[in-house]
Amino acid sequence: MNDTHAGKTGRAATVSARISPAGGLDILSRNEVARLRDASGSGLHALLRRCALAVLTSGNMSDDPRSILEQFPDFDIQVLQQDRGIKIELTHAPAQAFVDGQIIRGINELLVAVVRDIVYVSTQMEQGNFDLDDSVGLTHAVFEILRNARILKAQIDPNLVVCWGGHSISRDEYEYTKQVGYQLGLRSMDICTGCGPGAMKGPMKGATIAHAKQRRRNNRYIGITEPGIIAAESPNPIVNHLVIMPDIEKRLEAFVRMGHGIIVFPGGVGTAEEILYLLGILLHPDNAGVPFPLILTGPRQSAAYFEQIDRFLRLTLGDSVAEHYQIIVDDPAAVARAMVRGIDKVRNYRLDNKDAFFFNWALSIPYAFQLPFRPTHEAMRSLAIHRDRPRHELAADLRRAFSGIVAGNVKEEGMRAIEKYGPFDIDGDADVMQSLDELLKAFVAQDRMKLPGGTAYVPCYRVLTGEPAH
Amino acid sequence: MNDTHAGKTGRAATVSARISPAGGLDILSRNEVARLRDASGSGLHALLRRCALAVLTSGNMSDDPRSILEQFPDFDIQVLQQDRGIKIELTHAPAQAFVDGQIIRGINELLVAVVRDIVYVSTQMEQGNFDLDDSVGLTHAVFEILRNARILKAQIDPNLVVCWGGHSISRDEYEYTKQVGYQLGLRSMDICTGCGPGAMKGPMKGATIAHAKQRRRNNRYIGITEPGIIAAESPNPIVNHLVIMPDIEKRLEAFVRMGHGIIVFPGGVGTAEEILYLLGILLHPDNAGVPFPLILTGPRQSAAYFEQIDRFLRLTLGDSVAEHYQIIVDDPAAVARAMVRGIDKVRNYRLDNKDAFFFNWALSIPYAFQLPFRPTHEAMRSLAIHRDRPRHELAADLRRAFSGIVAGNVKEEGMRAIEKYGPFDIDGDADVMQSLDELLKAFVAQDRMKLPGGTAYVPCYRVLTGEPAH
Amino acid sequence: MNDTHAGKTGRAATVSARISPAGGLDILSRNEVARLRDASGSGLHALLRRCALAVLTSGNMSDDPRSILEQFPDFDIQVLQQDRGIKIELTHAPAQAFVDGQIIRGINELLVAVVRDIVYVSTQMEQGNFDLDDSVGLTHAVFEILRNARILKAQIDPNLVVCWGGHSISRDEYEYTKQVGYQLGLRSMDICTGCGPGAMKGPMKGATIAHAKQRRRNNRYIGITEPGIIAAESPNPIVNHLVIMPDIEKRLEAFVRMGHGIIVFPGGVGTAEEILYLLGILLHPDNAGVPFPLILTGPRQSAAYFEQIDRFLRLTLGDSVAEHYQIIVDDPAAVARAMVRGIDKVRNYRLDNKDAFFFNWALSIPYAFQLPFRPTHEAMRSLAIHRDRPRHELAADLRRAFSGIVAGNVKEEGMRAIEKYGPFDIDGDADVMQSLDELLKAFVAQDRMKLPGGTAYVPCYRVLTGEPAH
Amino acid sequence: MNDTHAGKTGRAATVSARISPAGGLDILSRNEVARLRDASGSGLHALLRRCALAVLTSGNMSDDPRSILEQFPDFDIQVLQQDRGIKIELTHAPAQAFVDGQIIRGINELLVAVVRDIVYVSTQMEQGNFDLDDSVGLTHAVFEILRNARILKAQIDPNLVVCWGGHSISRDEYEYTKQVGYQLGLRSMDICTGCGPGAMKGPMKGATIAHAKQRRRNNRYIGITEPGIIAAESPNPIVNHLVIMPDIEKRLEAFVRMGHGIIVFPGGVGTAEEILYLLGILLHPDNAGVPFPLILTGPRQSAAYFEQIDRFLRLTLGDSVAEHYQIIVDDPAAVARAMVRGIDKVRNYRLDNKDAFFFNWALSIPYAFQLPFRPTHEAMRSLAIHRDRPRHELAADLRRAFSGIVAGNVKEEGMRAIEKYGPFDIDGDADVMQSLDELLKAFVAQDRMKLPGGTAYVPCYRVLTGEPAH
Repeated sequence: MNDTHAGKTGRAATVSARISPAGGLDILSRNEVARLRDASGSGLHALLRRCALAVLTSGNMSDDPRSILEQFPDFDIQVLQQDRGIKIELTHAPAQAFVDGQIIRGINELLVAVVRDIVYVSTQMEQGNFDLDDSVGLTHAVFEILRNARILKAQIDPNLVVCWGGHSISRDEYEYTKQVGYQLGLRSMDICTGCGPGAMKGPMKGATIAHAKQRRRNNRYIGITEPGIIAAESPNPIVNHLVIMPDIEKRLEAFVRMGHGIIVFPGGVGTAEEILYLLGILLHPDNAGVPFPLILTGPRQSAAYFEQIDRFLRLTLGDSVAEHYQIIVDDPAAVARAMVRGIDKVRNYRLDNKDAFFFNWALSIPYAFQLPFRPTHEAMRSLAIHRDRPRHELAADLRRAFSGIVAGNVKEEGMRAIEKYGPFDIDGDADVMQSLDELLKAFVAQDRMKLPGGTAYVPCYRVLTGEPAH
Repeated sequence: MNDTHAGKTGRAATVSARISPAGGLDILSRNEVARLRDASGSGLHALLRRCALAVLTSGNMSDDPRSILEQFPDFDIQVLQQDRGIKIELTHAPAQAFVDGQIIRGINELLVAVVRDIVYVSTQMEQGNFDLDDSVGLTHAVFEILRNARILKAQIDPNLVVCWGGHSISRDEYEYTKQVGYQLGLRSMDICTGCGPGAMKGPMKGATIAHAKQRRRNNRYIGITEPGIIAAESPNPIVNHLVIMPDIEKRLEAFVRMGHGIIVFPGGVGTAEEILYLLGILLHPDNAGVPFPLILTGPRQSAAYFEQIDRFLRLTLGDSVAEHYQIIVDDPAAVARAMVRGIDKVRNYRLDNKDAFFFNWALSIPYAFQLPFRPTHEAMRSLAIHRDRPRHELAADLRRAFSGIVAGNVKEEGMRAIEKYGPFDIDGDADVMQSLDELLKAFVAQDRMKLPGGTAYVPCYRVLTGEPAH
Repeated sequence: MNDTHAGKTGRAATVSARISPAGGLDILSRNEVARLRDASGSGLHALLRRCALAVLTSGNMSDDPRSILEQFPDFDIQVLQQDRGIKIELTHAPAQAFVDGQIIRGINELLVAVVRDIVYVSTQMEQGNFDLDDSVGLTHAVFEILRNARILKAQIDPNLVVCWGGHSISRDEYEYTKQVGYQLGLRSMDICTGCGPGAMKGPMKGATIAHAKQRRRNNRYIGITEPGIIAAESPNPIVNHLVIMPDIEKRLEAFVRMGHGIIVFPGGVGTAEEILYLLGILLHPDNAGVPFPLILTGPRQSAAYFEQIDRFLRLTLGDSVAEHYQIIVDDPAAVARAMVRGIDKVRNYRLDNKDAFFFNWALSIPYAFQLPFRPTHEAMRSLAIHRDRPRHELAADLRRAFSGIVAGNVKEEGMRAIEKYGPFDIDGDADVMQSLDELLKAFVAQDRMKLPGGTAYVPCYRVLTGEPAH
Repeated sequence: MNDTHAGKTGRAATVSARISPAGGLDILSRNEVARLRDASGSGLHALLRRCALAVLTSGNMSDDPRSILEQFPDFDIQVLQQDRGIKIELTHAPAQAFVDGQIIRGINELLVAVVRDIVYVSTQMEQGNFDLDDSVGLTHAVFEILRNARILKAQIDPNLVVCWGGHSISRDEYEYTKQVGYQLGLRSMDICTGCGPGAMKGPMKGATIAHAKQRRRNNRYIGITEPGIIAAESPNPIVNHLVIMPDIEKRLEAFVRMGHGIIVFPGGVGTAEEILYLLGILLHPDNAGVPFPLILTGPRQSAAYFEQIDRFLRLTLGDSVAEHYQIIVDDPAAVARAMVRGIDKVRNYRLDNKDAFFFNWALSIPYAFQLPFRPTHEAMRSLAIHRDRPRHELAADLRRAFSGIVAGNVKEEGMRAIEKYGPFDIDGDADVMQSLDELLKAFVAQDRMKLPGGTAYVPCYRVLTGEPAH
């Protein structure tokens, strides 16, 4: 029942097929099968369709969340019930996911991950199984989603390096992320990223080659994404474990609870959001003494980028913030060696404290960092970017500011709000605002706000530098 | 921290040790760890202690549920919380479970199964996650417990043979169960039993040798037990998958949902209960056409036993009941061949109906068979053993009658009730009652009511053969 | 093409089948396939047929080498050439090796071992690849045969316990060997024996249960045999690695080069031969300081046996011989603990000396112990059992004396020689001869010379106790 | 004992280390260890050193066999004997093979392959174990070398695609080879090449990505090389099975006996040699009917290349030669699909003929193709390129002509002969010679005779187009 149509008439080639899910959905109760089937007919359907399409176009390079949906307007996905389990029915699906009518195994697995996570989260939410009203409850929700995705593994020594950075970076920067990934892979590190292109793909690609040279098996290339962004950042083809967290806050918590160290490559506002999120947590008094290797790195050409970030962080959060990170320029092997040393400390700390390797329970994440931030114009306007606040609170609001800009740039809901009401206003201390403005302008100048090939960037924000707006 | 004391002074040798649980409890949330720790301090503690002791004396031969507890009066078990997981602290535990101070790996696994199932069931019950008020909900509870125990496996062709029969059988009968297990094992069958000695051990032992000769790995020797009987029937040392179902009804449902065929060896009232449970289900009109191989077999010396059973079944449930079983005397290879043929039909039926191999969803089990029966004197008296009732209802009450006698014989609560109020009264049609009485007397005469070595059997029931009681 | 005939008419049931060899013979050159095919048509055919029959009747209990051949007079084996490999054609083979017309996998593997070793040894001999004229060459031949059998494994810590003892022992002794095997198995030891019944089977059986309880996989139950005895001691069904050494001397060398420690159970002359072989080597000045745990053990009832052996050894070889062994009576756990301690010393010694774990290159085995001894009447008469000789030379001749008696008892050629020329004469120092005579008479009295069920033992030797013979 | 020196002073960075060989050399006899040790001190030492260096610079891009040796003039390799096995001592080895002082696992394995093959071949030659005087003996030698390298695997369905083509190809062509490899990998094909860069690396690289996407494990990237060329074409980093055949003839035989189909990408004289070798065999009457898929393919830009080859082949060998190959331009998926179909026919043919999957015994390779050709000036001059000869004989001489040119271009011995005596003369039919001359000139024009970066190509041959030479 394949109906491959080569894209001769301008329409993309498609295939329709009935798929047996690969792994992860094999021992289901009748209730669960019914829930999966219903999901494809309920309010989850649009979400499921969108995420499935992202996975089926894995490796695609467009930055516009709407364009894939427009390329495959007739695409549909249905989950069919069968007593022995489920089948996934795909109609007019992108042909690139298939070989001679057979779905590519890795894409099948990512598709299963999509169905699994979307249905699991919605079911748990619906049944009130998650306690989202306090910090402990939120952390447990993150844990449960990850465990349900079978991503937590006991018996593995700490070796999971989270790589953050832009999805739209220069060729030099991309090659550099591959080299860092290669050096990490040579040292038996596994890689976890946000699962899109650019700095999220390069380290995995480099690690793949290194793992092959070291004859290492059971490699983990973990992609952690969220429904709002998966369409814009479709999982790259190397991801072999995918998990879809319900929102950016839980996604960030997943990164810092699972990762044993973090490397930040050049990026845009999303990357800045991530840095502030992590520093906000590490600056919290409860986390004093908890080792967490954080390395900012890029090729020689990008040295200025980290100088800017460093300057901005010191200005807003004080010089001592720099104790929490290390900047290494243009030396992939040094990055990998520093990370291995840092993770060794993490390992010893966890052993001393009898803490799990697979989940960083000991890290205290304040509720303010966990609470989903909905970047309405009002919420953006009410952020308080003042330096007299406790540093981790200030960091929290700075993180929200960047989060809002990401939403305005590439997330569907945010983009629509900007279209309707104009740019967000962001207010705060004059010098911080000025520094923020410079940073954001530099991102624009460096082409870090959009994927190459897009139209010129129109900012979705205005920084109110102390003077009255308008 | 081992304190092995050889049992020179009449006390059994014991060891105290802190155990790292083997398998199955490795990726736990903090909540779950806390729940496990609390379990050992709560109302579950007595239950946990009793079941743990049964497992630690795996292979023991005493039939008295109280005697093991008396042999190890100082035994205690605590679950300790550690951030990385849990430890199990054993104090004054039976030395036979240890080698040079190290717990035997298989016993560690059984211990983990005990903790896992007791805490899981109590947590699910407490949180109201099981819907026990209807048949579908009860079946789902059985499914969830089995899945939590990781006993359901996809991707395995039907090959699970359930073996029922007495824990206290003659040497000839025991040797015969081994030979049948050997012939099943040669044909790549896995074995599931009630996990005690006698007919529950022999088939596993025979299969072990055959599996070794066939160089077969990943063999499954599944023991399904219940808290009320585990102390009397401690898991034999060959069991490598143990699950503790909360009561006999769920245990029986687990057998018939997981097993692809059932072999019944000679036994006592417990075996009779099992036969009536299964026939009651197979006789139900909803299950017409569902293939389910059922073979009654024993050595030449036990031929009379099955003649009696057959006569009793035909008398009470009509001659057509015999269509559901096959009696094979003294021919282990023929038993195995017949079972392989029967399971082949099961396989084809499941394929045709797109049903799972690992759980028999298609079988309809009436609520009456699922509802836990508490064998009080009143409940026993109110059973209605009349032949004018629908056959599957009559079978249900006959099953309950035998269940009550098992409880009066070997389950703690039942034994205490008998001690206090005297024997149960069982009433019904005169000829059925007479036939029942003969059957039970034959069990006594054949020494099938107690383990050899016990004192003379004092019946815990009176059959009211039509005349007024008292 | 199966023609199973149940043995109703007195003839044993047989099956004819064409077998795909399981493992070990899969990547063959055309030359090798041709060689295998030719083997079944050449002078090797009788040997191949005899050994194959032993394997196909694995588990059989008869002690008479001729009886199996007589039971299956029409049995034949042919190796067929096919371009893709070989097939083994069996005609009128014992039905016990088959299940529903399919050969049992383990027996298939043993059959492959038989073909592999017989053809390998004959080819190497024929092509002159073995240098049998000096000690180093003989050791290399032993190594090559073992390696070709894929029995040598790198990467395994020393854990191979060789168990020697009689194939015909009392029920008490047999149960004791099982208990020792069980205690060894609990401590992760693998077992190597001569692969027949009795003391060669019990330890494997006990270890199997213990390995299962410890959830240990990749267990090795190695049987080392020789063509002259395989028919009398058909490999027990637990053996999962079989190697056929060309003669008793190479078989003994294989035991001491591969085993990390040796346990001797009660036995007859064969066991005495083994003890003297090993002590002869350990007494050699070159081997001073090489650790080699040797434990003589049996149940309480057999204590006298080892007292006799001990007395005989001290008398003939001097009291200091006792430094090389330890006698433990009726304590299986103590035996296992002592063996584990001893093997730990072996491990450290090998590490210190950078010696392989899988083959004891460091042990010096004098040529006299390696040279095949053909026990003709003349050779037996010319043994020089005199105490003024160097101890290891004396031990060598004592070993030969026992070897000759074994041959006269159970090996085909020896039995024929005795039938033809009467008993062997053995001469030497009067007191040694007297002691030897007593020992042998005790063996006869204890029924250690023949399997139970055989006729009364007629000695195949005369000890010349100093007085003129005849 | 590492002495990494960064290449600051113009000298390449080196490391000295003692290596435990990874896999393949673990169960050695003392004789074999001694042979390995001696190898590094004997006449094999220069060969061993050269090949080891090629492997240690795996991934290097220089085309000059002498340059690597010049970069690492102090490099040395010694095999050290230890009773437990061997160690490989590397002195002043290229630092790129190490990570933090540890050799990369994959490179260790390639190093072991080098030692293994060089010593094996020399030992077998020395002991006269190979019969090189007839075709059957030569084929057995090829088989033995491959088996010793553990590259032959039973139980794998035919899926090994040999890819031939130039080591020095254009970027377009290289990308195309990757795409073909990707399409082959998606269809579960394994790849075998000559193990250098260019068309020998691209297909492996593409297949690696596809295998990862299909979640395929146990992928085989087999490199078959020869001592004369390994230095110029150091194994690319993806090769996970390396075998060094003693000469080009045995290397070519290894390709056609192991491969189930062959794809030819654009290349130079080496590629032309390979095509003529294969066609010479396929044209032989004995091989009529033996299926052997052969596909010539390249990107659109290289279409002319295959037109030239095709024209040359038809001219020299007749039009019917084209029945043996298929030319596909610029369609990687079509190439892969055609190959899969072709290999399916191979599979059926082998099944029908009961032939092995892992070695193409059925193919008849005439002695003329197997006999090592030493391209002296005299031998080159005496080739008889005449169309009145049987086609497979003519193909054999054409193959030799190209072989000589390869030697003159990149093999050490050949280069020295050319330096000393000037270019080779090649004679034959005028039109064939003219066509050959055009083909070779086209190779030069297309930069196919040398790696980019080298100096201008100076032909090592003269085609004598009918006029008197000199």
